[in-house]
Amino acid sequence: MSRAPSDLSRLFDPRGIAIIGASTNPTRIGGQPVRYLLDYGFKGGIYPVNPKYQTVAGLRCYADVTAIAGPVDIAVLAVPAAEAVAAVAACGRKGVAFAILYTAGFAETGAEGARLQVELARAAEAGGVRIVGPNCQGMLNLPKRMFLGFGSIFQISDLRIGPVSMATQSGGFGFSVVLSIEAQGVGFQSAISTGNEVGVTTPELFAAFVDDPETRVIAGYIEGVADGAALMAAGRKALRAGKPILLWKSGNTVRGKEAALSHTANMTGSYDIYRAAFAQAGIIEVKDIDELADYARAFATGRLPAGNRIATISISGGAAILHADRCTELGLELPRLDAATKEGLRKVIPSFASAENPVDTTATVFNDVRMFTEAIELVLSDPNVDQLAILAASMMGEIAATCMSAVATAQRRFEGKPILVTWTGRRERAEEAYRLVEEAQIPVYTSPVRAANAAAALARFAGYRRRQAEVEPRATESRAPLPPLPAGSGALDEAASKRILTAIGIPTPREVTVAPGADPVAAAAGLAYPLAVKILSPDIAHKTEIGGVRLNVGTPEALRVAVGEVQGAARARAPAARVTGTLIAEMIGDGAEAIIGVIDDPVFGPVVAVGLGGIFTEVLHDLSYRVA
Amino acid sequence: MSRAPSDLSRLFDPRGIAIIGASTNPTRIGGQPVRYLLDYGFKGGIYPVNPKYQTVAGLRCYADVTAIAGPVDIAVLAVPAAEAVAAVAACGRKGVAFAILYTAGFAETGAEGARLQVELARAAEAGGVRIVGPNCQGMLNLPKRMFLGFGSIFQISDLRIGPVSMATQSGGFGFSVVLSIEAQGVGFQSAISTGNEVGVTTPELFAAFVDDPETRVIAGYIEGVADGAALMAAGRKALRAGKPILLWKSGNTVRGKEAALSHTANMTGSYDIYRAAFAQAGIIEVKDIDELADYARAFATGRLPAGNRIATISISGGAAILHADRCTELGLELPRLDAATKEGLRKVIPSFASAENPVDTTATVFNDVRMFTEAIELVLSDPNVDQLAILAASMMGEIAATCMSAVATAQRRFEGKPILVTWTGRRERAEEAYRLVEEAQIPVYTSPVRAANAAAALARFAGYRRRQAEVEPRATESRAPLPPLPAGSGALDEAASKRILTAIGIPTPREVTVAPGADPVAAAAGLAYPLAVKILSPDIAHKTEIGGVRLNVGTPEALRVAVGEVQGAARARAPAARVTGTLIAEMIGDGAEAIIGVIDDPVFGPVVAVGLGGIFTEVLHDLSYRVA
Repeated sequence: MSRAPSDLSRLFDPRGIAIIGASTNPTRIGGQPVRYLLDYGFKGGIYPVNPKYQTVAGLRCYADVTAIAGPVDIAVLAVPAAEAVAAVAACGRKGVAFAILYTAGFAETGAEGARLQVELARAAEAGGVRIVGPNCQGMLNLPKRMFLGFGSIFQISDLRIGPVSMATQSGGFGFSVVLSIEAQGVGFQSAISTGNEVGVTTPELFAAFVDDPETRVIAGYIEGVADGAALMAAGRKALRAGKPILLWKSGNTVRGKEAALSHTANMTGSYDIYRAAFAQAGIIEVKDIDELADYARAFATGRLPAGNRIATISISGGAAILHADRCTELGLELPRLDAATKEGLRKVIPSFASAENPVDTTATVFNDVRMFTEAIELVLSDPNVDQLAILAASMMGEIAATCMSAVATAQRRFEGKPILVTWTGRRERAEEAYRLVEEAQIPVYTSPVRAANAAAALARFAGYRRRQAEVEPRATESRAPLPPLPAGSGALDEAASKRILTAIGIPTPREVTVAPGADPVAAAAGLAYPLAVKILSPDIAHKTEIGGVRLNVGTPEALRVAVGEVQGAARARAPAARVTGTLIAEMIGDGAEAIIGVIDDPVFGPVVAVGLGGIFTEVLHDLSYRVA
Repeated sequence: MSRAPSDLSRLFDPRGIAIIGASTNPTRIGGQPVRYLLDYGFKGGIYPVNPKYQTVAGLRCYADVTAIAGPVDIAVLAVPAAEAVAAVAACGRKGVAFAILYTAGFAETGAEGARLQVELARAAEAGGVRIVGPNCQGMLNLPKRMFLGFGSIFQISDLRIGPVSMATQSGGFGFSVVLSIEAQGVGFQSAISTGNEVGVTTPELFAAFVDDPETRVIAGYIEGVADGAALMAAGRKALRAGKPILLWKSGNTVRGKEAALSHTANMTGSYDIYRAAFAQAGIIEVKDIDELADYARAFATGRLPAGNRIATISISGGAAILHADRCTELGLELPRLDAATKEGLRKVIPSFASAENPVDTTATVFNDVRMFTEAIELVLSDPNVDQLAILAASMMGEIAATCMSAVATAQRRFEGKPILVTWTGRRERAEEAYRLVEEAQIPVYTSPVRAANAAAALARFAGYRRRQAEVEPRATESRAPLPPLPAGSGALDEAASKRILTAIGIPTPREVTVAPGADPVAAAAGLAYPLAVKILSPDIAHKTEIGGVRLNVGTPEALRVAVGEVQGAARARAPAARVTGTLIAEMIGDGAEAIIGVIDDPVFGPVVAVGLGGIFTEVLHDLSYRVA
């Protein structure tokens, strides 16, 4: 399903842009891009296209895209659904590389729209045009001043330029996320909405963002992707480059899936399998806007911890406890500090404070800031510490400036150990302190829980990178081929299944098969009691339910009884089943019952499921997935 | 353990306040309260106490608290730990009702401190003084201008007055939460830190806040309480009054508990049992600052939904999907809309938009705001809808003002159905729109996930209130007394246990007990095959593990074999056990294996645990608790 990554470079650096369906009214959908490209300083060609007008916003307006003389790399299509196919064909004739198609009314509306979408895809393919959309809200590229879309965000010309690029299947939501994150001080390179993804897809864009030297953090919102392998390949590529993909996946519940179908018509798929794929490909899942902003700020620093261990210095015991709770829940390790570190700490912090991790300097820091400064240096020097959380409560004024100066200095000395600050000091009473941490690129969080979440995301990504460095070189190792399955189709009975397991090296219990009517005691002569007795039939998958299993059979006498019972049970409760005999096996002692299955997932292909087996499989759904 | 609620009214309305250990330096801990009380306009008596000074901040300074002539309801104690006991005793002589003791160095520091804390408690009791603290950071009461504490928050005289009161065991953290929430537009009445809780406790304060007519929302941070019953009583009282307690409990992991011990020395206890108690008492648990702020804003409106059903109107399909996902995860119901509602919607929204809940008007609302207005009225009129989420993406300017005017008008018409808005429009570009929703007391959230969380909290609290209204009148119904337990102590065997179950009305299988050596077939003559055969011994709790159980025994012949086997297994694998015989019981068909236990919890007393029984109990820890 996956294909070679396409070249999207002209989508982010077009020589000319045509606006098909351009409007002279700058508040209309066809008028906005013309206005924004002009007003915000786009440097390439701007070509309004609309047979109704001679000029739009003072620019020559073309009757048809093919009438434009200069190169056109992008066409924005603000046309009704019924005209979209013809417009795309015209773009093909002009040699336009990308058509951004706002128009809704395709697969998201039902069968009729789906047919129109197929037509659209054909026209695009025939003309060599790659579609962004349909049913999208356009795109932004801030350094190139490309404001190609409609909606509130395009009115804001001074959006902060920064290290994040985002691809989103939902324009309305995605751009509101961009706004919300930008308001938290995180700048963007690009943000692009893909809607129904007839052409350009989110995984393709993620891969392209990895290649963009200015993008350090990749954000995404998807309802589902058509090509799971492409998503995972983009994840692995991003991981190798050290640029995290922070991905939000929606449409995970029954009602959410329904809503997604009428939204962008992307297949939402199985959430469990998506999550498995994210973990395998090193993609960091996010589940709220603030989480995305928090992680983006942590990753934008470029600092990653060497391991899973985090230390905390807090001026508030309460914050330290919450932070410790949350770190523990997220699987971070709170290491004990070295004896030397603790000894050093005891010399600087009060006797009633805590010199163990989490270090609690207590609020007496307000009387003696020096202890705070020294504690930071001591803890960062400790070899057991991979990253450091500073919990600064709501310090303000002079004290805040002194403390944050110490934090900034320490971060510069220990670049390999990320510092994350939790702090709710009011900005207007701590301007200098905020300036210091921002200059040092230290992320500040408003709660110890959010800081712990971000620290865990850093550690997780760093862990993914270590695993990748270890596993990828081994990926080409050859393995012995698996034995062929028996000819024919359908379910195998237990004995045939076990023969295959044995052939591939998975041990099974010693056992014999007894034909109906044969003497079980003689057949079991070579086995050690106690024994398990099971009905053998390709038609009986759940043997226990029909009374077809007897365990812990201790004597030959009991064996005869048990074989008679399971055969009798099968005759009584599964009269239609083909019974091939009785399986007699040695009992296995302690061990966990496991289920292993393979799912052919429409998005990700073959997926292996492993979980708690036996009678609880269906009740507990305790399954873990891996994309094969 | 629980005692009658004490009278804390003078703590929030003192006639006079003494500051023991007052300092002439307004930046010192003993100087701050004097300064703040004077500067911020406290109307009662202000009495600095310190033998070193004649005056502090222009006020007469007393050598001893007993030298003050006027009434003193509160003394703030900024003294070393070694002087605390004497200072409290002096307060007792003066008749001071409450001593706010900042000082650390008590139970949180170990055995020596714990002894000092006991002494302190004795002095307080002897003098009739109730201690707030020790190891606390003081308190705030904004309407009374009581700024009695140290730390950054006390420097901010213009903290917004509003409907929230907070009690926190951690001053540093609690006050930083207050600041953070206040910055989100939520005002406070009181905020008080209780530290080690030698005297005044968080549950007591929660109960007092319920009685405060100006407090509509109660917030709390605890590491643990000594008196679980008092906490639950406060929760039920708050529930009756319709004032939610939004409670954050920390110290829930091993490292968190350790940190709590050296912080306020409150017993953190079992988190699972706390959570059960919260649910039983109608307390809403929160796990982050933003969550607390979000819920506070939702509850401050005073509007509660009548049921669990939520409808959504979104201008962004993506936001609608996320909202639907999150609502579903949280157990909210997304009802289908009435046919009439859908018919009405189809007339106003575009053909490619969704007229099913979640209603997606799509971004075309930017071209036609009227559809939005009409959709709101239609959906709120639907009898299947208990509350409404409006997802407004980042609309700004005129459109935002028109839309939010419609939202505000609709909320006034449908007061019984709370509206929660998700919106990231920039304030400076939507001043009028923000003013309109704020005037109408409609909470605004920056993400659909946070709005869904808040909606679920409203629904949960409303559900607790319905349950309380239903259950409390029944609480006095008399029940038949339980039969006495057999004399003596120790574990009962299975047969004796089942006799007790039968006596209290829980059915058990028909069964017989066979003495060792007796004929099992004759004994089981009255039972229907298949049978279960189990070893009977008060010393063998886990019968399966020693091979002491045989199930599905189908014939008299097999029964003899089975009884011999389980007796043999017990002899071989539990030779020291007293075997009283064999239990032969009829097999029970379908049914779930359950475990029921009672825990004597140090905080909450007897707690019943119910869960999945059998061999998975220990593996899965799938237990549910109820405080008895």
